[in-house]
Amino acid sequence: MSVDEFNIINQYLKKLNFGNPEALDFEDDAALLPAKAGFDLVVTKDAIAESVHFFKSDPPADIAKKLLRVNLSDLAAKGAKPYCCFLMLAIPSSTSESWIKDFTSGLHQDLSKYGCFLAGGDTIMVKDGIVLSMTMLGHVPHNKMIKRSGAKIGDDIYVTGTIGDSLLGLEILKGGRFDLSLEEENYFKERYLLPEPRLDFSLKVSDLINAAADVSDGLIADLSNICNASKVAAELKVDLVPVLPGLMRVFGADVANLADVITHGDDYELVFTAASEHNKQIFAIAAVAGTKVTKIGKIVASQGVVAPVSVFDQSGTKITFNKTGFRHGGKS
Amino acid sequence: MSVDEFNIINQYLKKLNFGNPEALDFEDDAALLPAKAGFDLVVTKDAIAESVHFFKSDPPADIAKKLLRVNLSDLAAKGAKPYCCFLMLAIPSSTSESWIKDFTSGLHQDLSKYGCFLAGGDTIMVKDGIVLSMTMLGHVPHNKMIKRSGAKIGDDIYVTGTIGDSLLGLEILKGGRFDLSLEEENYFKERYLLPEPRLDFSLKVSDLINAAADVSDGLIADLSNICNASKVAAELKVDLVPVLPGLMRVFGADVANLADVITHGDDYELVFTAASEHNKQIFAIAAVAGTKVTKIGKIVASQGVVAPVSVFDQSGTKITFNKTGFRHGGKS
Repeated sequence: MSVDEFNIINQYLKKLNFGNPEALDFEDDAALLPAKAGFDLVVTKDAIAESVHFFKSDPPADIAKKLLRVNLSDLAAKGAKPYCCFLMLAIPSSTSESWIKDFTSGLHQDLSKYGCFLAGGDTIMVKDGIVLSMTMLGHVPHNKMIKRSGAKIGDDIYVTGTIGDSLLGLEILKGGRFDLSLEEENYFKERYLLPEPRLDFSLKVSDLINAAADVSDGLIADLSNICNASKVAAELKVDLVPVLPGLMRVFGADVANLADVITHGDDYELVFTAASEHNKQIFAIAAVAGTKVTKIGKIVASQGVVAPVSVFDQSGTKITFNKTGFRHGGKS
Repeated sequence: MSVDEFNIINQYLKKLNFGNPEALDFEDDAALLPAKAGFDLVVTKDAIAESVHFFKSDPPADIAKKLLRVNLSDLAAKGAKPYCCFLMLAIPSSTSESWIKDFTSGLHQDLSKYGCFLAGGDTIMVKDGIVLSMTMLGHVPHNKMIKRSGAKIGDDIYVTGTIGDSLLGLEILKGGRFDLSLEEENYFKERYLLPEPRLDFSLKVSDLINAAADVSDGLIADLSNICNASKVAAELKVDLVPVLPGLMRVFGADVANLADVITHGDDYELVFTAASEHNKQIFAIAAVAGTKVTKIGKIVASQGVVAPVSVFDQSGTKITFNKTGFRHGGKS
């Protein structure tokens, strides 16, 4: 079979709508989404490109899963329940059928895992590298979306999971050799390739949260976005940032190295703020959801400074960073 | 200024949300769309790529307008009112700022013209050619979307505007020299570069229409899609297909040439079917909307044949085509 848009749709993409009526069986060049009374739609869009965000040699199923998961991570940050998505698949005609097969099979697995479906999209042939874009829709109860702008002075700052795993995973995938067990190596690689959107936790805790963002550009950068949108500042204790022992072994306890860890990005954990009265309940919900949650700092009044996030070391000395996070994948 | 995702968003994309609250001022990596009681959302997605659908040397404003208009044409075919859109901009970092400026300025003009806005998106840097993807949302009254599957035996088949203009426009842009006045040349080029989505007419007439599609893949191909989805067949009279005198002069009255015209695609006119009792009202609405409408055939019972659209010449002889339309830009 040649790689042909119509065959791709009929043979590989159609099954990804799981028979949901909104997709109109992909026969209408459009999807039809009835309004869900009492709910708002949250829409996110993330795109990735060959040789920039992934390599042609990466497992196609993982590429598909990561594309879906980075979008789901945005929904998690909003407290939105995944609904459906739209995929643009721009591929060179030299793309093998097995690539398409593996890509759509990976997408099928994860759509199923996260309870959403493909509602439509567009497949085009391009001259050069693969470009993939996904528009993702989720539902939140009316007026309940968690915004970046809701952080309040006195809020505790929390982060889910551990930070920096993805950075180390990428270094290993690039051929780096470190003082790590095989098990640790695989764990870090997996964390880079397949981030886990914190949906379970987010949907349960959203009522208690004032502001949230997913850590895609870097913990400092994403927390800065929250501060700027909320017109507040943040004080963060670097020794509280949850970092795995393997990562500490590799990067050492050196502050300069830790800077890399907390500014790298691609963690797809959630950084969020909540009033201190909710502290106990947040940890209780986290325990039920099986999500590690760590309190890492406080929201304080903005001094009108350019860099709203101050980071302190164990001794209480302020640390200065040269960068705040990768500015890749700017989103509007 | 370097071409940087964040600068592109702040300097050029932000103004395209026209201050609509759904866009959250592009500060949340997400849009928030409240449900509109009594309405469904129609979602379309169309993507275009450099060197395939457009050339780097094409006016960037026209590229932006065409991207928006092909999506609006899909909405017109559904009887949906434009609401908002999401843009993926994948550009090489070598892209000049003037390209971005002209592209977003063209988009601004047309968003304004068609009463919709940019609600979000993603901007990424790629190694090679530009790829653009747009997800477009429109509103239809609940359960009133025009589907492809609604055509009924006995329906008249109509088409808006004239067919084939875009084909000739493309030939002229490719350097072809034909027996045309300068005015005609410009008209045909414009028809290729800037199709006119038939929204005004569509929104007024949608209650009377049983099935519709926009002519993007070719009149025969798009009518075939209607027939297949509706499990009916179509009989079309080739001499009724509305073709401009300039086009007739270039392609001659030769049937084989006319085949090119009615199978080419990129017309972005509407082909639709309606019960014959609505004939008078449809022409009355078309006159008010200033949209040319022509009756070109009849919906008949399906004989279960592979090609559901039969085309007859003036003498009533059936014409055979080698192709039914370009299968570019497959959409799911």
